[in-house]
Amino acid sequence: MATQLPEGLATPALVVDLDVMTGNVTRMAEASRAGGFTLRPHAKSHKCAHIARLQLRSGARGLSVATISEAEAFARAGVDDLFIASPVWPDAGKAQRLRRLADGVALRVGVDSVAGARRLGDAVRGGARPVEALVEVDSGARRTGVPPQAAGEVGQAAAEAGLRVVGAFTFPGHGYGHAPEARERAARDEERALGEAAEALRDAGLEAGVLSGGSTPTVGRWRPGTVNELRPGVYVFNDATQLAIGTCAAGDLALAAVATVISVPAPDRFVLDVGSKVLGSDRSPWVRGRGLLPAFPEATITSLWEHHAVVRLPAGVRGPALGSTVAVVPSHVCTPVNLADELLVVQHGEVVDRWPVTARGANT
Amino acid sequence: MATQLPEGLATPALVVDLDVMTGNVTRMAEASRAGGFTLRPHAKSHKCAHIARLQLRSGARGLSVATISEAEAFARAGVDDLFIASPVWPDAGKAQRLRRLADGVALRVGVDSVAGARRLGDAVRGGARPVEALVEVDSGARRTGVPPQAAGEVGQAAAEAGLRVVGAFTFPGHGYGHAPEARERAARDEERALGEAAEALRDAGLEAGVLSGGSTPTVGRWRPGTVNELRPGVYVFNDATQLAIGTCAAGDLALAAVATVISVPAPDRFVLDVGSKVLGSDRSPWVRGRGLLPAFPEATITSLWEHHAVVRLPAGVRGPALGSTVAVVPSHVCTPVNLADELLVVQHGEVVDRWPVTARGANT
Repeated sequence: MATQLPEGLATPALVVDLDVMTGNVTRMAEASRAGGFTLRPHAKSHKCAHIARLQLRSGARGLSVATISEAEAFARAGVDDLFIASPVWPDAGKAQRLRRLADGVALRVGVDSVAGARRLGDAVRGGARPVEALVEVDSGARRTGVPPQAAGEVGQAAAEAGLRVVGAFTFPGHGYGHAPEARERAARDEERALGEAAEALRDAGLEAGVLSGGSTPTVGRWRPGTVNELRPGVYVFNDATQLAIGTCAAGDLALAAVATVISVPAPDRFVLDVGSKVLGSDRSPWVRGRGLLPAFPEATITSLWEHHAVVRLPAGVRGPALGSTVAVVPSHVCTPVNLADELLVVQHGEVVDRWPVTARGANT
Repeated sequence: MATQLPEGLATPALVVDLDVMTGNVTRMAEASRAGGFTLRPHAKSHKCAHIARLQLRSGARGLSVATISEAEAFARAGVDDLFIASPVWPDAGKAQRLRRLADGVALRVGVDSVAGARRLGDAVRGGARPVEALVEVDSGARRTGVPPQAAGEVGQAAAEAGLRVVGAFTFPGHGYGHAPEARERAARDEERALGEAAEALRDAGLEAGVLSGGSTPTVGRWRPGTVNELRPGVYVFNDATQLAIGTCAAGDLALAAVATVISVPAPDRFVLDVGSKVLGSDRSPWVRGRGLLPAFPEATITSLWEHHAVVRLPAGVRGPALGSTVAVVPSHVCTPVNLADELLVVQHGEVVDRWPVTARGANT
């Protein structure tokens, strides 16, 4: 957080430093352009129509989203090119929602099984526009995704089910780690997996024009020639994890929770009115404690209860006074955003706007 | 979850087993009555007006809440006796909200410092009804709360600031643990801390009629004579942590997330469409993995992403089919409830009602 904290906030509240955030968005857009990549940022990190528009104006092609309801929220906000970056298994209700979405926007959905591809194809059949499919391949995160060589089989099932197969995607969730080597390795894994997937798709007579990779840690680490679309999310705000693993600098931290010191029970301990119901409770193995206090670098959030952060200080270090406000940079920014109704936009120490979290609760 | 899962749910969704939940509420009310305790359940676990009414009808005296906005939400829902069980540091806006609250309901607020007591007294001065204060004392959790011997000094400041001091409270957060001994020890700590606080308050010429303790693990473990009010929250639903530490039986689990198997990438692994944005990401040292799958007791949720639960199976154990639905009992129930807009109420395998999470987002 470059700017000072605004006075008189009702705490806890999430504040976004407008200038820092805009800088993060612009830099990623410029780097994507310079590298010849299509930028399709993951909107799950901000869930906010204002920020989506900023990304699109800066050159993003469309958005990645995690769920059908996130796609609906951004479609309502006017975004017309959306990729649901996960396999889905539509029931009757979700099938109808997907058809409605595809009527209004360019819709792309992930598939990672023959049965899932058929289910999706059945769900969206008869719409005005074809739904595009990207086959998800596993590049090492061991979450969803087929082995790259199986992309052809899944793609073929998708095509037979009436979907328009346009390529493959992967999520390098194993790219987090203290050492830059972890991210380099994950970037190589993505190139290899997407390269093999492209070959498998083409062998099956399918298109492989879109090869989509990347979360914030691996972006910018690919060699030219394979990956051609990137889906970073967290880079908009960054967080204590990104700072710890070296993918951002302290000056790139754009979001913090502002909290009040409600208790100072001992000289080496103070308690903030912010807990896991505002900050989330994601732990990061790379962050000391449960979040960062930029104004008190020696302090450690040793425990995070639902409504309290307990902060410890080394002997002799003075903490903030009872009643003062303190900024806390979350370990993982996507979870506090998901818990908020609005983001307070701050510039030069003043709240200049309040942005609703457009896709709040849109997790189905 | 005693009942079968309803068909055709849009997943992920939180379901509450009505009969199990009602049984939990009734049993706690009966035990409180039998032990001569005032029951003031903590509403942060359910945030739901329907459940609050059930608790009050069963004999609860009022509710405990965590924040001013939770108090406002339950006051709007008709609850007229509310205890904000935390110190607060009201700014001008919160001061006004507290005065408005106190005009409509019997309001009690925690205090744990001389300065905080004065601040609260100033904030609510001039209201139609006096605001009651309970001094928070630390019985071993090392969160908020003064040492019990300091209760007199804080109470005196509160009384001088115009608050009506009625006693003390403590939160035995250190009462979690595999062994029943941890809970017994914490219950003894509560008795000792509240006993000393009562003495300190009376020495200062103040009332100590309310001595409030207890979260779900220590309830029922006090000897007669000291603690006279209890504030359990989680007992309404229970969760994987309560099951693991032995404070409930499997038949007392009343809430689960229902998820769909969206991917089966390998014979020993399947992936559900539920992650930390629905289940929360609280980890429990007493729970294997990131939640329980009652229908697949040998399965372990090895990682929880924002929208995916990755589940591993031992070799040779068959998992659920792609597209089927599975119930997941959360590690800690308060966080998924906090993330939901509504709870689906299930009885005999059917959704019989949908209850809004009345105090959703009310965390300030």
